[in-house]
Amino acid sequence: MSRERLVVIGGDAAGMSAASQARKRRGVDDLEIVAFERGRATSYSACGIPYWISGAVDSEQDLIARTPEQHRANGIDLRMRTEVVGIDTATRRVSARDLETGREYDEAYDQLVYATGSVPMRPRAEGFDAPGVYGVQVLDDGVQLIAELDSGRVERVVVVGGGYIGLELAEACQVRGLDVTVVDRSAPPLGTFDPDIGAFVADAVTDMGIALVLGDGAAKVETGPDGRAVAVHTQSGRRLPADLVVLGLGVRPNVALAEAAGIPLGASGGITVDNRMRTLVDGVWAAGDCVESWHRLSGQRMVVALGTHANKQGRVVGINLGGGYATFPGVIGTAVTKVCDLEVARTGLSEAEAEAAGYCFVTAHVDSTTRAGYFPGAKPIRVKLLAEKRSGTLLGAQIVGRDGAAKRIDVLATAIWNEMSVDEVLSLDLSYAPPFAPVWDPVLIAARKAFEAVEADVRRDLRSARG
Amino acid sequence: MSRERLVVIGGDAAGMSAASQARKRRGVDDLEIVAFERGRATSYSACGIPYWISGAVDSEQDLIARTPEQHRANGIDLRMRTEVVGIDTATRRVSARDLETGREYDEAYDQLVYATGSVPMRPRAEGFDAPGVYGVQVLDDGVQLIAELDSGRVERVVVVGGGYIGLELAEACQVRGLDVTVVDRSAPPLGTFDPDIGAFVADAVTDMGIALVLGDGAAKVETGPDGRAVAVHTQSGRRLPADLVVLGLGVRPNVALAEAAGIPLGASGGITVDNRMRTLVDGVWAAGDCVESWHRLSGQRMVVALGTHANKQGRVVGINLGGGYATFPGVIGTAVTKVCDLEVARTGLSEAEAEAAGYCFVTAHVDSTTRAGYFPGAKPIRVKLLAEKRSGTLLGAQIVGRDGAAKRIDVLATAIWNEMSVDEVLSLDLSYAPPFAPVWDPVLIAARKAFEAVEADVRRDLRSARG
Repeated sequence: MSRERLVVIGGDAAGMSAASQARKRRGVDDLEIVAFERGRATSYSACGIPYWISGAVDSEQDLIARTPEQHRANGIDLRMRTEVVGIDTATRRVSARDLETGREYDEAYDQLVYATGSVPMRPRAEGFDAPGVYGVQVLDDGVQLIAELDSGRVERVVVVGGGYIGLELAEACQVRGLDVTVVDRSAPPLGTFDPDIGAFVADAVTDMGIALVLGDGAAKVETGPDGRAVAVHTQSGRRLPADLVVLGLGVRPNVALAEAAGIPLGASGGITVDNRMRTLVDGVWAAGDCVESWHRLSGQRMVVALGTHANKQGRVVGINLGGGYATFPGVIGTAVTKVCDLEVARTGLSEAEAEAAGYCFVTAHVDSTTRAGYFPGAKPIRVKLLAEKRSGTLLGAQIVGRDGAAKRIDVLATAIWNEMSVDEVLSLDLSYAPPFAPVWDPVLIAARKAFEAVEADVRRDLRSARG
Repeated sequence: MSRERLVVIGGDAAGMSAASQARKRRGVDDLEIVAFERGRATSYSACGIPYWISGAVDSEQDLIARTPEQHRANGIDLRMRTEVVGIDTATRRVSARDLETGREYDEAYDQLVYATGSVPMRPRAEGFDAPGVYGVQVLDDGVQLIAELDSGRVERVVVVGGGYIGLELAEACQVRGLDVTVVDRSAPPLGTFDPDIGAFVADAVTDMGIALVLGDGAAKVETGPDGRAVAVHTQSGRRLPADLVVLGLGVRPNVALAEAAGIPLGASGGITVDNRMRTLVDGVWAAGDCVESWHRLSGQRMVVALGTHANKQGRVVGINLGGGYATFPGVIGTAVTKVCDLEVARTGLSEAEAEAAGYCFVTAHVDSTTRAGYFPGAKPIRVKLLAEKRSGTLLGAQIVGRDGAAKRIDVLATAIWNEMSVDEVLSLDLSYAPPFAPVWDPVLIAARKAFEAVEADVRRDLRSARG
């Protein structure tokens, strides 16, 4: 039996998880693994970059889970600073360019893993490609942004986009003592949350001293005589002076190379994969921010750029390449972030998503505390639930609160994953002691209220049916 | 239709939840509610008493969720300081004694709720009923204990029992600057946990400056010339001087009255109830610490004294009495406690319990951090899982760690409730961001390791089957 060759494009979470899992199951005599990474780091936490910028995390090194040397010691032929510039799926070859020397060369593969991640969204409008406008996606972006912030010439920062990344970056700059404004066309921020939850976030951000310009998108970036960004203009015509513009509009899958190679994409713009993470092209697998995932509730395929999915998907690819059998069973839209000391989390469907997916639902929310109300350190928490009418099936949950609030979303994510009704949720045997929860955990009270809302809705329906 | 009369025995969580729910569904013209409470408070948090003793909670009032006046305003005829001393289920009457005046009188009922809670376990050995030996169960116990501690004559405290309550009380006394020793016949403490987890607890307790005498139970209490406790003698013959002895041996259901009335008990010693919380006697319901609950994994009936179950069970009784339909679907043994700054939690079955229930299982554990390892404030967490051989069904989980560790048990409790396999658990869409979790949440890594243990076990079996 001749040795197979696996080529991996992209040396971050998805790609290197795939490589490591495959290596774990197949030795170097059986499987050769070549991995290409165009940057200077492997297996790093892109999600940690805002905290490195803020100074909460000391150095770039802290964000790196596994270095190139560690991967090499594991029998992976890792080519750093080398970009794959072409894929020929017919002959099973990739073309690579060494970014240091400029040398180009081909490499044959038997199996290919496409794990190129994502790129920051950048408006096509005027000025968004000017110097002084930064997207933050890879470690090198962080290096550049920190150099700018350390230069002393930046006092005013405008962050374009009020989603997770935008707010995290806004906070990072604010913590550094800068004057920060966030511009977002939607109002309130964090558009993946319901507006009532977003309003809490807006208040917390404002209280922290970050200016919010909401319901008014960025229209263009004004540049100075040296071509560098000096201000952001909004759609309503406001001019927001800026020494630095940070893009926080989120990311889109990095699929240019796949597209050119004829690897099919889905309607969401991500690469189409089956539950074993195979693309529609023989011998080509894909994982991470560049693929689309199946949403278990909406039935839609969507792109969710999150390190946790990238790691899981990479593992699935690696097990399958290693001769095992593994599947990625989809997502339910769980996400969490911390904005100042406000914790915000969601899972399942938001109201807008549930409507779009054709569900009929009721909502309920409860304001409670993270510990027994009388216990020192008890913090406020709001839990909001969406439950399907009649069946009471839990469809979505959102949490906003302070220390100890957000991680409770995982209980609700697990409940949604198992298609529990809110009636079942309220009977769950969750942990209780005064330092950890009120005697009715906020999650349980919310379920109880949602159950009451489901029952009230049925009675309302029956009454109106009787005329 | 004549008005029905509901009599409730016990004015804490279970009894008053039942009364409140019933009242919510049936007005005063339809249902008369009479409730008897022998103490001075209603609807209070017994679990909060250790924190009141330690000073973390300011006053007794903080522990009271709803006062007698509030219940009365809700149309409940509440008789405080009145003890029910007899039940005649044939004629449907109870005999009550006003503890202030000594007056005894009968009260008829149509429906009866028995919610008398529990009493602290007190060894029958010599001296355990002497002055200076305290059990802590009701608010009045707290008043007495605090008066003792405030008196200035207490320097050395011996706590008998190293379970949840024992350790919580030990910490409370230690925080007050006293010299505290905990005696427990088992080693390590927290016997409902596996020994490897208990060992962490023993270390944390010792580090805090609390002396542990383990594997050596309390044999007798020595009393001084005035009859008051002066020392605890252990089974091995050690003499532990004590100005005060605190019982932390846990509680047993308070069922004397039920037993005398012929209301059947189960083998566990708690009152037998069905899933609607009906006893085996017509018209008599029971809820809270005095009943036995069905354990969903072991299939056994057991007594679990926890405010959270008492509240849920009381609610179920109240809904059923109110003309609705509700059930209490059992427990899975979830519990959490904080010992010094160590958080400890469990759900499902421990190793000993799983063996007793006849399961074949593997175990796996992981040591990780509560946040991304590089994130400020990341704390250690150990997650240990038990999974059934072959099926991989999650049977039990234990967590030990620092700030932010223990509440993760709820995710595993929800997974166990839904009979998930560890393979399924590792695919859960749990929330991820650096301030909240590593990219693989410790819960997910533990599930991954447990899955690997299940697979390794299958291969081992197959190999040995082939000889």
